[in-house]
Amino acid sequence: MENFSWLNAFKEMGKRVSAEMKELFRGTGAGRALGKGASGDTTLVLDKRAEDAILTVLEELHAAGHTFTFISEELGIKEFGGSDVLILADPIDGSNNARFGLPFYSTSLVMATGGKLSDVALGYIINHGCGDEFWAIKGGGAYKNGIKIKSSDRVDLGMVNFESSVPKRDLVAAMPLLKVARKVRCLGTTALDLAFLASGSTDAVLVPSPSRSFDYAAGWLLVREAGGVVTDTDGNPLDDSTLGLERTRPLLGASNVTLLNKALKALRG
Amino acid sequence: MENFSWLNAFKEMGKRVSAEMKELFRGTGAGRALGKGASGDTTLVLDKRAEDAILTVLEELHAAGHTFTFISEELGIKEFGGSDVLILADPIDGSNNARFGLPFYSTSLVMATGGKLSDVALGYIINHGCGDEFWAIKGGGAYKNGIKIKSSDRVDLGMVNFESSVPKRDLVAAMPLLKVARKVRCLGTTALDLAFLASGSTDAVLVPSPSRSFDYAAGWLLVREAGGVVTDTDGNPLDDSTLGLERTRPLLGASNVTLLNKALKALRG
Repeated sequence: MENFSWLNAFKEMGKRVSAEMKELFRGTGAGRALGKGASGDTTLVLDKRAEDAILTVLEELHAAGHTFTFISEELGIKEFGGSDVLILADPIDGSNNARFGLPFYSTSLVMATGGKLSDVALGYIINHGCGDEFWAIKGGGAYKNGIKIKSSDRVDLGMVNFESSVPKRDLVAAMPLLKVARKVRCLGTTALDLAFLASGSTDAVLVPSPSRSFDYAAGWLLVREAGGVVTDTDGNPLDDSTLGLERTRPLLGASNVTLLNKALKALRG
Repeated sequence: MENFSWLNAFKEMGKRVSAEMKELFRGTGAGRALGKGASGDTTLVLDKRAEDAILTVLEELHAAGHTFTFISEELGIKEFGGSDVLILADPIDGSNNARFGLPFYSTSLVMATGGKLSDVALGYIINHGCGDEFWAIKGGGAYKNGIKIKSSDRVDLGMVNFESSVPKRDLVAAMPLLKVARKVRCLGTTALDLAFLASGSTDAVLVPSPSRSFDYAAGWLLVREAGGVVTDTDGNPLDDSTLGLERTRPLLGASNVTLLNKALKALRG
């Protein structure tokens, strides 16, 4: 790969996953379960094919002399020569959307120089529904399709996105915040929720059930570099979260600190 | 327009609205309020530009000798020579999504031979987020990008879409159904909710607040022609609804009668 940078590598992976998905949905294979992934979710044909597309690029990079450790939703941990560079992938975030034909799901990729969320140096998210690419570079800003983005400076909870893995549990938990929002959306993809927050489309994001770091690590950096904030649902920073396969923290994101405090107050009732 | 059919005309309108939106979002005009539309919603620059794109095609058709009455969200009622042919448009369904940069919103178009929902002969919906086109011909089936679609034959409430104009009112009203669903989504566009139901992506749709016929008329025909069913939230058919600007009925859609009955039972508590 000429002009190597992890951003270029991630864009190449995003492009290949998009092509795989396009190809897959021409046939009938999507949605068929393949067994359990390393993180416990049911692995679908589409998740496996997306991960394989990413692995192909990583193998090319390794063959060209790059060393790193790869952590992914489906295969778990795989060493490529070993180094301090950690690559995390959620091959398809929003698998249920992809599987049922709802055209908004994404691939989320992260490069970190250590094992904590605060070590994330690069985050990349591609929306396979429309091809939009989002990325953030630690200390270097956040971008959508190459244009610098900033989170909203609105100070009312106009548009709030939430996730609900188990509606009868998560909707009840989210209700105190949703009731004070002017508009709510539930899209089924945490990575895109955070990308939309970073790009100023929404004002807050709530994921009441514990999330895994590869679900939110790229989005966390995006929001942060765009001027917003992501904490757990008690307002605690996530910086010391371990990058790995475990479900760790529920998430609350806001486009600015004023809105984070409004959202925390609403959740406390 | 060569090879005239209303379907071809609707596809041309969809294409032109998509082009307008692409152009608009290059600049900064989107989201600026233009005043109130005929139906009472705040008219945004984007709604006005979408309607104007549709009007351009209608004016070309009228100049070529076609006569019809046009009813649209923004301008209200406009006569083009007068005839029994009624054309209804929701230029942008999901204006808030478009306005805030959430890439799923649509244009919904209908041709009817009389003033009731049961007179709808053709329904067309385009998803401007990804370009997918859905249409249905009364007695002639439902299609997505030219391929015949069928609503799901699943008999559990796996994926339920709901709308929530006013969260503190509509979420509470929807909760009894949402609690028994395995997955829920809230997308902010009734037309696409119905298109996704028709194409087998989802199992049920709930819109607790009264909807206007141009929000649901195209989707209603799509769902019906795909094998599903749309009623009000008491299970009453909508066939005798008047095509016009008024908010009339809350909506409950399901991919089959078994699921409609399950959803009605859940809503009754």
